[in-house]
Amino acid sequence: MDRRIWQGLTRVDGVPADDRGLAYGDGLFETVRVSAGRPVLMERHWARLSAGCARLGIPELPFWHDALDDFLAGRGDGVVKLLVTRGGGGRGYLPPADVAPVFMLGWHALPDYPAEYGESGIAAGHCQLTLATQPALAGIKHLNRLEQVLLRRELAAQPDCAEAVVLDGEGRVVEGVFSNIFLVRDGVLITPDLSRCGVRGVLRDALLDAAAAAGLPWRVGDVGPADCRDADEWFFCNSVYGIWPVRRWGERAWRPGPMTRQCQAMISAWFRPA
Amino acid sequence: MDRRIWQGLTRVDGVPADDRGLAYGDGLFETVRVSAGRPVLMERHWARLSAGCARLGIPELPFWHDALDDFLAGRGDGVVKLLVTRGGGGRGYLPPADVAPVFMLGWHALPDYPAEYGESGIAAGHCQLTLATQPALAGIKHLNRLEQVLLRRELAAQPDCAEAVVLDGEGRVVEGVFSNIFLVRDGVLITPDLSRCGVRGVLRDALLDAAAAAGLPWRVGDVGPADCRDADEWFFCNSVYGIWPVRRWGERAWRPGPMTRQCQAMISAWFRPA
Repeated sequence: MDRRIWQGLTRVDGVPADDRGLAYGDGLFETVRVSAGRPVLMERHWARLSAGCARLGIPELPFWHDALDDFLAGRGDGVVKLLVTRGGGGRGYLPPADVAPVFMLGWHALPDYPAEYGESGIAAGHCQLTLATQPALAGIKHLNRLEQVLLRRELAAQPDCAEAVVLDGEGRVVEGVFSNIFLVRDGVLITPDLSRCGVRGVLRDALLDAAAAAGLPWRVGDVGPADCRDADEWFFCNSVYGIWPVRRWGERAWRPGPMTRQCQAMISAWFRPA
Repeated sequence: MDRRIWQGLTRVDGVPADDRGLAYGDGLFETVRVSAGRPVLMERHWARLSAGCARLGIPELPFWHDALDDFLAGRGDGVVKLLVTRGGGGRGYLPPADVAPVFMLGWHALPDYPAEYGESGIAAGHCQLTLATQPALAGIKHLNRLEQVLLRRELAAQPDCAEAVVLDGEGRVVEGVFSNIFLVRDGVLITPDLSRCGVRGVLRDALLDAAAAAGLPWRVGDVGPADCRDADEWFFCNSVYGIWPVRRWGERAWRPGPMTRQCQAMISAWFRPA
């Protein structure tokens, strides 16, 4: 495994056993697609990591940027994972006053999803477990991911489905298990509000900004399962695989539509080597 | 730091960098008071850890029990922390089929809380952050503890208060920041239902069983802030410090009552060296 770890400013061999990331999930991560050595949409990943650090009160260390550049030098296509924790902390929930955050970089191969997921679309499943509502932690990509672990097992029990729709406790559509969701209805691009729960995907926000810049009508708001069922087209997205159109969900079938193809074209420009 | 770590059956020097406890909080912990080398209420701690492993699908390894006995040999008073994770797991939420769970034991000094917390009681604070409702994770002591980290910081900003009341999003009293809560009203011992969120403390459940065995009237159910305000007596408890009576909360003051003293007497027998 190709990995580098720092505690504060110091390069270390492993994660300290008293690390608060391990003890409490007290930290954040980013999973970034790398195209010919270049991390895609990296400024947005840094911005989300910064927002997470601010929310949790974890100091950011400026050398992280140079450390990533150095780690990626000479690489090709793959995925780089950034992980930040508050660092060591003894026993007890209270963060120590003097913090040396841990920063970890890991290199991974691109996952080998079938190309037809992007081309002709996927069958989408449905998860029974619903996401808890916690506005204080919504949007950021923190390390408290047991809900996603349980959801991912539910998805694995639906072997025909590459992704699945996840609801909150009030029955609203939030996201996929490891993706965000977009619908198209009457030419409007719609994605769920994530202020109560869910992760604000880097690709989701980039798509919204691109839609706004291109003059496409878009809306962030409450979405119900019926909105998915009645959508003209809809898709899952994340910053590693891009966009997977939905071709089947329950009783209904779709073909990838023009808005989906337009979004895929934008993304493929972002994913292309510089 | 006095610590031992195993991956599967193998003693290791540190936590693997790809550990799923670190990546996702995919694991559990127990914090156990040790009295003259004896872990107090240990069979209940093992039972809660087992329940957590079953809930998350993490295999339990029988040698953990012997490893704990060996770790505690020759020790005096303190706290032993047990931490279990699903083990290593690459990138992605799906647990690997073949799992070698990590087991970590750590030895800590008893926290030096003032003796008057138990004798004359504490001032209790109030937290603004509310707990999210997630029945799938309620009750067990998993590693997704960012809510508690944020709550502990709120408590630290109330320096007169040793603990604080934590509500759920619907305004029900759930627990303290690192404790459970009991009220006494008209001679009945009452503690909040924890099926939606919160941690089922080992001492909480031991107190309920002891109350039942002693023929004391008790009830588990919904508790509101008004129930605390109107309580004849009330207290916080956890398995490290025991019981802290509440002597002040907001405008109201209390003196430790007879039921609180009876519960403290039961606990002090449990905490006494064998």
